[in-house]
Amino acid sequence: MELADRHCTPCRGGVAPLTQDAAAARLAGLPGWQLADGAKRIVRCIHRPDFATALALVNRIGALAEQEGHHPDLKFGWGYVTVELFTHRIGGLHENDFILAAKINALAPPERDRH
Amino acid sequence: MELADRHCTPCRGGVAPLTQDAAAARLAGLPGWQLADGAKRIVRCIHRPDFATALALVNRIGALAEQEGHHPDLKFGWGYVTVELFTHRIGGLHENDFILAAKINALAPPERDRH
Repeated sequence: MELADRHCTPCRGGVAPLTQDAAAARLAGLPGWQLADGAKRIVRCIHRPDFATALALVNRIGALAEQEGHHPDLKFGWGYVTVELFTHRIGGLHENDFILAAKINALAPPERDRH
Repeated sequence: MELADRHCTPCRGGVAPLTQDAAAARLAGLPGWQLADGAKRIVRCIHRPDFATALALVNRIGALAEQEGHHPDLKFGWGYVTVELFTHRIGGLHENDFILAAKINALAPPERDRH
């Protein structure tokens, strides 16, 4: 099953975060995303033409986060949205982060990103 | 007239940013805000109980920004919203930044902030 078709599962901690190699392998299928903070997070910067369209995307990502029960950190302003994903309870990356990243790519395909 | 009752004016550049002393003097009446980035920006971190309430505040600030034609950079996630204000065209702080900060304080009074 494709990552974008899966759903986040409850994570109560007690599992190890993904290793850098495991995370990098998952990113191969997720254009636009990069490892950050010593492979503890994944990050994507999405360009948009102005503030209102950036905020509209933030709301679509927010609705998705509520559906999945997994919440990113988002920074945005005029022309951009930056999404950071990691799993607080394990202090690093979990499968859920890659599932949410794939769903965000389905909402905002990287090949349509405006530079 | 109180800062929160004024409106942002078009800024086309060509004016000097406020000095650090002038900016600090204006902050005296704006609880919650701090100078950042060598007095080029002002920043406030606002606590909220979860992701949905943080996103709701982001939308209220976004609507205010559109009304005023002056746009902050916002970072938010579960439990917090961080607002950064500065004026791109002058590479620093303008009266507009303090007007918008005062209006944000009227929306989200610092004394009601949840820690």
